[in-house]
Amino acid sequence: MLELRLVQGSLLKKVLEAIKELVTDANFDCSSSGVSLQAMDSSHVALVALLLRYDGFEHFRCDRNRSMGMNINNVSKLLRCAANDDIITLKADDDSDTITFMFESPKQDKIADFEMKLMDIQNDHLGIPEAEYQAIVKMPSLEFARICKDLSSIGDTVVISVTKEGIKFSTRGDIGSANIVCRQNTTVDKPEDSTTIEMKEPVSLTFALRYMNSFTKATPLSSTVTISMSSDLPVVVEYKIAEMGYIRFYLAPKIEDDDEDTL
Amino acid sequence: MLELRLVQGSLLKKVLEAIKELVTDANFDCSSSGVSLQAMDSSHVALVALLLRYDGFEHFRCDRNRSMGMNINNVSKLLRCAANDDIITLKADDDSDTITFMFESPKQDKIADFEMKLMDIQNDHLGIPEAEYQAIVKMPSLEFARICKDLSSIGDTVVISVTKEGIKFSTRGDIGSANIVCRQNTTVDKPEDSTTIEMKEPVSLTFALRYMNSFTKATPLSSTVTISMSSDLPVVVEYKIAEMGYIRFYLAPKIEDDDEDTL
Amino acid sequence: MLELRLVQGSLLKKVLEAIKELVTDANFDCSSSGVSLQAMDSSHVALVALLLRYDGFEHFRCDRNRSMGMNINNVSKLLRCAANDDIITLKADDDSDTITFMFESPKQDKIADFEMKLMDIQNDHLGIPEAEYQAIVKMPSLEFARICKDLSSIGDTVVISVTKEGIKFSTRGDIGSANIVCRQNTTVDKPEDSTTIEMKEPVSLTFALRYMNSFTKATPLSSTVTISMSSDLPVVVEYKIAEMGYIRFYLAPKIEDDDEDTL
Repeated sequence: MLELRLVQGSLLKKVLEAIKELVTDANFDCSSSGVSLQAMDSSHVALVALLLRYDGFEHFRCDRNRSMGMNINNVSKLLRCAANDDIITLKADDDSDTITFMFESPKQDKIADFEMKLMDIQNDHLGIPEAEYQAIVKMPSLEFARICKDLSSIGDTVVISVTKEGIKFSTRGDIGSANIVCRQNTTVDKPEDSTTIEMKEPVSLTFALRYMNSFTKATPLSSTVTISMSSDLPVVVEYKIAEMGYIRFYLAPKIEDDDEDTL
Repeated sequence: MLELRLVQGSLLKKVLEAIKELVTDANFDCSSSGVSLQAMDSSHVALVALLLRYDGFEHFRCDRNRSMGMNINNVSKLLRCAANDDIITLKADDDSDTITFMFESPKQDKIADFEMKLMDIQNDHLGIPEAEYQAIVKMPSLEFARICKDLSSIGDTVVISVTKEGIKFSTRGDIGSANIVCRQNTTVDKPEDSTTIEMKEPVSLTFALRYMNSFTKATPLSSTVTISMSSDLPVVVEYKIAEMGYIRFYLAPKIEDDDEDTL
Repeated sequence: MLELRLVQGSLLKKVLEAIKELVTDANFDCSSSGVSLQAMDSSHVALVALLLRYDGFEHFRCDRNRSMGMNINNVSKLLRCAANDDIITLKADDDSDTITFMFESPKQDKIADFEMKLMDIQNDHLGIPEAEYQAIVKMPSLEFARICKDLSSIGDTVVISVTKEGIKFSTRGDIGSANIVCRQNTTVDKPEDSTTIEMKEPVSLTFALRYMNSFTKATPLSSTVTISMSSDLPVVVEYKIAEMGYIRFYLAPKIEDDDEDTL
């Protein structure tokens, strides 16, 4: 028997909106410690890793470990039928090939349940080693989303460079070239407005803007985003999910001979 | 001479938005008692009946009964030129084949008039007998609209079942199946948020969701909707028009052998 | 060296939005007195004239007169990357064929700079003689925009007639005919809500609604619009730019034999 009850149902709605642009089908792996998901995007370039810890649920029962394959677009359709203040419960019998989503209005006067067939999905579960990063930048998620969107109107790739002073996003295209610098600033009224930089050494990497823009679909989940970079590793773009876990996006840098020029 | 002056002009705007998806051309029947309209949708499946009583108008003059044929889409275009707080006056001479819509701003500093040619429309006026219904449900119109829209993302038809406990909306499609139950609740802060059920016997009928969704275009007219059902009659979906009348939509249930299964 | 610093950067964003529908490429003419632009629309029917006086800038340095050719759509793309409260600075070296747009956030924690190549544009600079107009109407810009949009749903041309009582906009099309009259009114709470008419003699001219609708893209720049008309001159539709200058649109009236009929 699996039964997960999430009072803040809107979180699950946002999680699905965050991953549905990148992921078509995926396994939700349930164990007594929580729910996790790991999936490559359809072109096998970016990796999504989701974690929702058991203690973020009001009620969490998972009698045996299960990988439940779902079509992300279908789950997203179902969850759009939940109001933002609905309580969401997921239920599945141990031997069942279906899962039930239940949405309860806060006043309990409207109850919706949706039954969906599960899928068999081949999973190449990647071990993601813990790594030391040369630079870790924490910045407002809305600012990051705005920069990725703005630069997309000019170029296709972004060079992200971190120094002690700040983080610089650069692109160039037919119209011309652009540089946006966010300076480290910790003297702001609200902590979530601050930009902080932990840096061992300066780093500068190039990425496809298309993927960065997909990652920013997770913006509603968190007011801040953390970007971790090392020259020899995929970048990690992480959005915390309040008290429960995270969504992490991994993307390998582009190898370009003219990296230096582009800066 | 016909002259109808409606201080709350936005009501007429909403009426046209409510029917324009279903009805192409229709006669507005004017008599000393008010304005009414009856029209089938273009596929002759659903029926719309509108009533605006004379005493809801600030000024109502109708010297002789007239059926004024209009293209609903054109009337809707004209009315979109009226501001929400405009006073709307309809005028037609007895022997004229045109009608004039006049829009006055509240401060009388802007006056617009639109003249439109009337059409000859063959009318098969149906007598709609008063009927006793097995179940009458009154519920928030926004809730009903939301449910119809949500279920449309899953299936094409909806089974509406009424019991003493509540009203259940069910559908199924390629993704899976869905049930939404609204419980009778009368202990709400605002009367328009309540769901009330008058039931002689349980009833369960199947309808095309496409039509239900068209009916919900009338939602801005009223905070509540009344759904009247009997096994042997078309469902009536009624939206009251404040102090003046109503829009009623009639739709015959689908006859399906597997009704019981779908529930 | 050219260096123009505009604290209220949103003004420049609005200017570009106002002209980009009409103008493809244009020269920004910079001199010690300010920035001006004059351009025909692509079909050579309407003329746009822009003036931004030097004293509206926080810092204005222009060592020698320059005509800087730019693709308006590209400039608009760049400016959409500026936040509404950003300070915008334009910079160009005297011998450079590029211009730099710099956007600074109010707190100076985000700095963006965009470099764009300048173009060579042939300019037929028209002398626009100062003229006496038979009628000058000042009215709320939102009202004017609403009227042009509303009439476009009915006809393609608008007859604008000014008398002592007010300004009348008329059109006709397949649906029917429309007249909208705005009366002179000066007894309003806010001066920008008033409609005032300075008239030497009544005037009535016909214009293509398509162009009028393009002109109203300047509505966000000013709460009022001034329409100046004479029988033998193009109409001038002017939007003031707070304390700095204006955008003026010029459009020749249509010569129609049936002008009188259309009224």
